Amino acid sequence: MQVIEQKGSYCFVFSRYPEPVAKVQPGEEIMLYTEDAYSGLLRSENDDPEEVDKKRTGPNPQTGPIYIEGARAGDTLKVHIIDIEAARDWAVSRIHDFFGGLTPNKFTRMINVPQCGKTYIYRFDNESMLRHDDFLRFPWKPFMGTIATAPVMEAVSTLTPFENGGNMDCPDVKPGNIVYLPVSVDGAYFFTGDCHACQGEGELCGTALEISAKVKLKFEIIRGKKITWPRIESPDEYMVVGSARPMEDAARIAYAELIEWMCEFGWDRLDAYQALTQAGKLYCANMVDTNYSMVAKVCKKLAERR
Amino acid sequence: MQVIEQKGSYCFVFSRYPEPVAKVQPGEEIMLYTEDAYSGLLRSENDDPEEVDKKRTGPNPQTGPIYIEGARAGDTLKVHIIDIEAARDWAVSRIHDFFGGLTPNKFTRMINVPQCGKTYIYRFDNESMLRHDDFLRFPWKPFMGTIATAPVMEAVSTLTPFENGGNMDCPDVKPGNIVYLPVSVDGAYFFTGDCHACQGEGELCGTALEISAKVKLKFEIIRGKKITWPRIESPDEYMVVGSARPMEDAARIAYAELIEWMCEFGWDRLDAYQALTQAGKLYCANMVDTNYSMVAKVCKKLAERR
Amino acid sequence: MQVIEQKGSYCFVFSRYPEPVAKVQPGEEIMLYTEDAYSGLLRSENDDPEEVDKKRTGPNPQTGPIYIEGARAGDTLKVHIIDIEAARDWAVSRIHDFFGGLTPNKFTRMINVPQCGKTYIYRFDNESMLRHDDFLRFPWKPFMGTIATAPVMEAVSTLTPFENGGNMDCPDVKPGNIVYLPVSVDGAYFFTGDCHACQGEGELCGTALEISAKVKLKFEIIRGKKITWPRIESPDEYMVVGSARPMEDAARIAYAELIEWMCEFGWDRLDAYQALTQAGKLYCANMVDTNYSMVAKVCKKLAERR
Amino acid sequence: MQVIEQKGSYCFVFSRYPEPVAKVQPGEEIMLYTEDAYSGLLRSENDDPEEVDKKRTGPNPQTGPIYIEGARAGDTLKVHIIDIEAARDWAVSRIHDFFGGLTPNKFTRMINVPQCGKTYIYRFDNESMLRHDDFLRFPWKPFMGTIATAPVMEAVSTLTPFENGGNMDCPDVKPGNIVYLPVSVDGAYFFTGDCHACQGEGELCGTALEISAKVKLKFEIIRGKKITWPRIESPDEYMVVGSARPMEDAARIAYAELIEWMCEFGWDRLDAYQALTQAGKLYCANMVDTNYSMVAKVCKKLAERR
Repeated sequence: MQVIEQKGSYCFVFSRYPEPVAKVQPGEEIMLYTEDAYSGLLRSENDDPEEVDKKRTGPNPQTGPIYIEGARAGDTLKVHIIDIEAARDWAVSRIHDFFGGLTPNKFTRMINVPQCGKTYIYRFDNESMLRHDDFLRFPWKPFMGTIATAPVMEAVSTLTPFENGGNMDCPDVKPGNIVYLPVSVDGAYFFTGDCHACQGEGELCGTALEISAKVKLKFEIIRGKKITWPRIESPDEYMVVGSARPMEDAARIAYAELIEWMCEFGWDRLDAYQALTQAGKLYCANMVDTNYSMVAKVCKKLAERR
Repeated sequence: MQVIEQKGSYCFVFSRYPEPVAKVQPGEEIMLYTEDAYSGLLRSENDDPEEVDKKRTGPNPQTGPIYIEGARAGDTLKVHIIDIEAARDWAVSRIHDFFGGLTPNKFTRMINVPQCGKTYIYRFDNESMLRHDDFLRFPWKPFMGTIATAPVMEAVSTLTPFENGGNMDCPDVKPGNIVYLPVSVDGAYFFTGDCHACQGEGELCGTALEISAKVKLKFEIIRGKKITWPRIESPDEYMVVGSARPMEDAARIAYAELIEWMCEFGWDRLDAYQALTQAGKLYCANMVDTNYSMVAKVCKKLAERR
Repeated sequence: MQVIEQKGSYCFVFSRYPEPVAKVQPGEEIMLYTEDAYSGLLRSENDDPEEVDKKRTGPNPQTGPIYIEGARAGDTLKVHIIDIEAARDWAVSRIHDFFGGLTPNKFTRMINVPQCGKTYIYRFDNESMLRHDDFLRFPWKPFMGTIATAPVMEAVSTLTPFENGGNMDCPDVKPGNIVYLPVSVDGAYFFTGDCHACQGEGELCGTALEISAKVKLKFEIIRGKKITWPRIESPDEYMVVGSARPMEDAARIAYAELIEWMCEFGWDRLDAYQALTQAGKLYCANMVDTNYSMVAKVCKKLAERR
Repeated sequence: MQVIEQKGSYCFVFSRYPEPVAKVQPGEEIMLYTEDAYSGLLRSENDDPEEVDKKRTGPNPQTGPIYIEGARAGDTLKVHIIDIEAARDWAVSRIHDFFGGLTPNKFTRMINVPQCGKTYIYRFDNESMLRHDDFLRFPWKPFMGTIATAPVMEAVSTLTPFENGGNMDCPDVKPGNIVYLPVSVDGAYFFTGDCHACQGEGELCGTALEISAKVKLKFEIIRGKKITWPRIESPDEYMVVGSARPMEDAARIAYAELIEWMCEFGWDRLDAYQALTQAGKLYCANMVDTNYSMVAKVCKKLAERR
């Protein structure tokens, strides 16, 4: 099995500009290492976060780009997430003064910024929970916070979720599920990273249980099939992730694209709209990133009735 | 058991201004009839919706106000939802030209309004599903779309979800769950209506499976306890519903108030913020009403660790 | 000239429910007294704002409802603003901890609320400027922060701008201009108050130079003409005020309704859309109230070319 | 005078990745040619916009990057706009089906998309107005729709306004004014393009009077001064442009940064907040791009009182 470790420096934008770090065949199983959101530099509750910021290039270092042999612009990349393993025995989360769902931030500016920084280190306990103390301990439910293909011309910050995926912080990007991404450039230029040991919906304070991980993946190419936003398939459900601001625009994208998916099964557009009204699910993946991400779902049984 | 039917006309605002239609003791079980969102006037797929609009006073007729004996401004009203029964053998949903999550509407104005109206009538089938045709059929999962106490001075449209509840269209307002509402005026002035036989998250097209129903409830008063937004308790979870625009503000309210609730259990505020980051849930109840509603949840086991 | 002073208590909602305080004939000039946003209770920089809050019923006390003889639901009320005079020799503004464009507030919730309260008292100086100190002094540019007719059924908080006007905080509601409001109930039930000696666009901190005032007005009725949002006419311009959240929805309403107004002059809808693209103006009246208000303008010369 | 014409292809992202097309000394006057938003391909009202889209790489072709000698990351670039001349005798605007302030679009998705496309060609008339017909004619008020320096790592779509400028569509980026931009990379990597002969506030339908132009500029470097969002200075006013979604976040950025600018003059932060409340201006530059742009202004006389 090909094992991919980032040689030299990690990527901090999703783009076609860097040289691929590896080439992968469709159908081949690979294992890749991912660094945590703080580049492994925030290791203790006493570490000075400003010092950490000075040392790191940016948040969410990416492993990639990975060149998928045979992928061509206009195809869809099917990513099977086989497994995620922790690469270290700890996870870190931090409440920031100026980042998060309930703090002023770069876009939602306030006249004064309240001080509320705090770092939490978690370690595996006997029951395989990640434990900070008796109250803050959470089960191992790992997923990849970022997963993307490169856009045609842009180089998109690894803080940003967008049409080709990116920093969606969506807990359904997890082992057992399949992620579908648009292929915008030949070779797809795949990236992933920012693994989370566990995360609630919304990633409220802005940082989940951030970990370094070993991720096992397999790719397929759907030739000539064009999608415009990321899709996810679980054993029971079809999902679309919309990312935008304000949050209602993310919701509109997610449901509008899920309607398109249902139309591929033969549904009439208005009937699919009606069906999702009565049986769709809609949760928030992140309410903290440069775009908010909403996930619309429908159970396969309903979608496949047509 | 006291049975409450609206004498004369239904209410189309949540307010203290009308005379109560009934008085109820805390602890007493009551049954009340609710009319559907269209006042029972939209009964066939051939009915002209403009004619229906001319005949009805407004959307979401309410049963109430119900005077809760002993409730005083500053208390909290605890509403046990015991049961919901269908009062007719059909349900109706309609896709409107100028209302809904994916159509232009009163606030999200567009230069042209595309025509896309369509009415769907559903009837119970042998398997107790509500069936429109082979594809559009959904299980019986009833809940009350509106539930509210009166505000101090305002008369709030029954299309609006707000601090005292209202048109939240939240599927967790269902049998087996408890809803907590602020009491703003003596007697609480309780309203409910707009029952749905089934609804997805977001109520995408703007109308669920709209039904007339018989609702069984019981009230309790929590003396001197002041809450500021509606709370819900299920057997396993605590929830807060935030309603605002844009949708991220609804999400902020829901999570900020859930943190307050956790603080009542003894949590430190920042630690509660951290806990919900890793284990909170956040779904959209409605993306169509005059405010959007988001529901933040935490499992009781975690909240009660303190 | 009829002089209207509020007998008894002021109104804190826009509604048809209270008895009119006066009846006015179309064409008759009237003078009415308005109280300031703090009910005249915040008079010194040392006053404790919490004490003030305990004493007042709410923000923005209204003079009204005023019954306009002959006005019928479905008409338009034309309000000529003739003059505004200060009723006292001072004005007050306050930066609040939990209200304003750059502070956390009831809807845009934050985990911590920074302390930043400060009260400013202004007095007229020799140059007829309102002066707090050498730096904070502003010219007399008075206008009415609130102006409304009653809605059909709702009682709307006097903090809220909406379809029938309300707390728009729009500096163009000033002497020399005409405000057009929808008439939703017979007699119109007119309200005004919350005068400002001066205010920038957006009313950034949430309170302008708040004054008590004497307002001279004259009403006309446009029989059978139905408008859906407030319009303003200055000597040179036509304007529409849209109020909603998020702010882009307020902008959409304002421009969409201004297009409708241009169509009344004979413009084709797409051509009006094109014309406003090249020559419309769009400013923010308030970014602090329960809805945001945006004002779209077109110069009369252009609108009247058709 | 150095004349800069784009050799080879135009840029469609703002980034440091392409080779500079020219090097310019601070203080040197230059003239540069800019192509119009449609790459000069939409020339007749009968041109098929889909054919045009197939031929062009993207919207808003940029002239640049221009390397400013001596500019270093952390400096501020001062851009004097000396003059804008039309390079052709016509301008074009188009109402698109799926782009614009009052149409469904990529982010504000709708179930159906109404057809409303229309192309308008304008030509200079005797009175130096740009004329489409007797009704649609507008004065020559040229400005640059896009102006930017390169970000550190990202390559940002030329449809996007952001911290380093970009597609702000701000009519104050005009001859006689000075634009201040953050320098994020050595040499600044300056871009401009997308000139408009005239545009209203908001750029309502999404395309102004789009022209090819000759732009005369001069640069200065402010060594070691770091700003975080674009600033503009006119003879009488200081302005900041904030770009974000929802629109209220753009407004918050603009005013918060204008407060920072006033603090540079010696203002206390809360007093500056108070001053802008009473005397700030706040208009919408664009309500159509991937971020909305709001412009906050203060007159120099007030800002310089300190």
